[in-house]
Amino acid sequence: MPEIKIAFLGFGNVGKALARLMIEKRQELIHRYDLVITTTGIATSRHGMAIDPQGIDLEAALSSELADLNRVDGVNDSLEFIRKCGAQVLFENSPVNYETGQPAIDHLRLALELGMHAITANKGPVVHAYRELTDLARQKGRRFYFESTVMDGAPIFSLFRETLPASRLFSLRGVLNSTTNMILSRMEDGESFDAAVAYCQKIGIAETDPSGDVDGWDAAVKVAALVTVLMDIPLLPQQVDRQGIRGITPAEIERAKQDGKRWKLVCSAERVGEQVKARVAPECVGIDSPMYGVNGTTSIVQFESDVLGKLSIIEENPGPHTTAYGLFADFLNAVRH
Amino acid sequence: MPEIKIAFLGFGNVGKALARLMIEKRQELIHRYDLVITTTGIATSRHGMAIDPQGIDLEAALSSELADLNRVDGVNDSLEFIRKCGAQVLFENSPVNYETGQPAIDHLRLALELGMHAITANKGPVVHAYRELTDLARQKGRRFYFESTVMDGAPIFSLFRETLPASRLFSLRGVLNSTTNMILSRMEDGESFDAAVAYCQKIGIAETDPSGDVDGWDAAVKVAALVTVLMDIPLLPQQVDRQGIRGITPAEIERAKQDGKRWKLVCSAERVGEQVKARVAPECVGIDSPMYGVNGTTSIVQFESDVLGKLSIIEENPGPHTTAYGLFADFLNAVRH
Repeated sequence: MPEIKIAFLGFGNVGKALARLMIEKRQELIHRYDLVITTTGIATSRHGMAIDPQGIDLEAALSSELADLNRVDGVNDSLEFIRKCGAQVLFENSPVNYETGQPAIDHLRLALELGMHAITANKGPVVHAYRELTDLARQKGRRFYFESTVMDGAPIFSLFRETLPASRLFSLRGVLNSTTNMILSRMEDGESFDAAVAYCQKIGIAETDPSGDVDGWDAAVKVAALVTVLMDIPLLPQQVDRQGIRGITPAEIERAKQDGKRWKLVCSAERVGEQVKARVAPECVGIDSPMYGVNGTTSIVQFESDVLGKLSIIEENPGPHTTAYGLFADFLNAVRH
Repeated sequence: MPEIKIAFLGFGNVGKALARLMIEKRQELIHRYDLVITTTGIATSRHGMAIDPQGIDLEAALSSELADLNRVDGVNDSLEFIRKCGAQVLFENSPVNYETGQPAIDHLRLALELGMHAITANKGPVVHAYRELTDLARQKGRRFYFESTVMDGAPIFSLFRETLPASRLFSLRGVLNSTTNMILSRMEDGESFDAAVAYCQKIGIAETDPSGDVDGWDAAVKVAALVTVLMDIPLLPQQVDRQGIRGITPAEIERAKQDGKRWKLVCSAERVGEQVKARVAPECVGIDSPMYGVNGTTSIVQFESDVLGKLSIIEENPGPHTTAYGLFADFLNAVRH
């Protein structure tokens, strides 16, 4: 039975959820996919790194914070870890850098150069290095996959890649940022903007500085990633016409409610000749829009292509386990084809 | 460049839309997938059959009703056509038979036995012979695919097969029959049941005898197909607890409207231990249900699995061209992997 060696670069909420999923699906991988998984490396940001060609016990790694594992001296940085980990698949889960995509791009490039499949939930490398990394992967006969960068584990990139071959995407529209959607949902229930932000921080979906979400940056990065990959037109977040939700007043929310409408931070992109017009801006949507019922952390994206009419995907109840599943599905699709 | 030989068994609205799509995508298949397609056989129900190992001109076939094409004497029935057509891929588009799945099952079985990929938009073989045909395909190293049987060309079966590996489906809910949804939408606008049925017949989405739709049979067949394939539990349409829309009165529709609700013919299935509870029945849904905005010919299905929360797919504006795209996508997925 083929043994596949994997390594985790980054072992936070998502990396740990992926490790739990690997444990949970171990028997199924053996019986349904004829695959045995061995973890040969784990690199954490604060608890050091472990490498073991014989296999690291994932259960132990999840409970011990690597303290009791086989530590390797002389491996002090991420690139060294990638070179020494001996894996065939690297899960890159370093923190996102919207400005440059680094250091994730360097990690993924090195992994591919070494002949590994490179899988990430990090949006930075997709908007800053999609073509380079995809070309490198093709050249090496490996895969650069990143399903979890938009709508967590819901199939978006794999939808087009695997299930909609030879299609041409004309336009997309969606609600892709959970935090602003939760804030708007709570403001409809009478909460102030500040209280709604505080709530999102409390449940862990907003940062201490919420501007990445409320000013539309996260949404713009997602639009840029979708356009770059699905329309094959390189687009940076800075090129997205972007407006956040700070300008929406409680009075406007109340007025919309009385008209049977709701405010949503809508992402959109549309081909115009060889170019694309991409936008993030608040819109007031009515009950017959599929976005109307998309509340709280739910997200939606609607695609218009040459082969189908409108096709929408809605994801409810996301979390680290669904992000982890996106990585896991990427992994299986990389190794089974 | 690899040449793939295809044959059409059935050349009605869907078969012709597929032929047009093959013509439209010819250059893209060459450049993006390195494939040249040659049509070696076309069998119609009323205009005879044509076989030509050198290739039948699809443009001519679309305009001439086969009159001028290379007719082959001595080929009078479908099975003989399959044996003689010389194709590597058979598109089986014979009329559906809900009771037995025949003669489509015999067509698909023979195609697979002869080493062809077998692709159909016919629901009959899926509910009556999914396991047999899938096992036979595996044994022959070929594919039995049927994306277009539920929600036209929208990816449903390929979604699970290609993008959600190692997932386990717990339950599904959806609005899967366009005709009843259109009838209910028009009754909301004040039309009588009979007038709404007549309208659906006029635009070609309801049969002369509308009972297959309004009594929930078509929906039950789709639930049976989804359960059989996605849950891997064989289920016949007769085993689906089924109630149609004849019992919904204009007064009930009006009352729902006043409450901000709408009647929908809801399909559902849920695992209960090793069994499944499957149902088709009218339900009154509110504005926060994703089904509320699903009107006219739009359809929706919502999946709950062990790996994601709820994932919904909505398809708008279906037609013969989207059904044709489902067949086309099946074809590309069969030959490219």
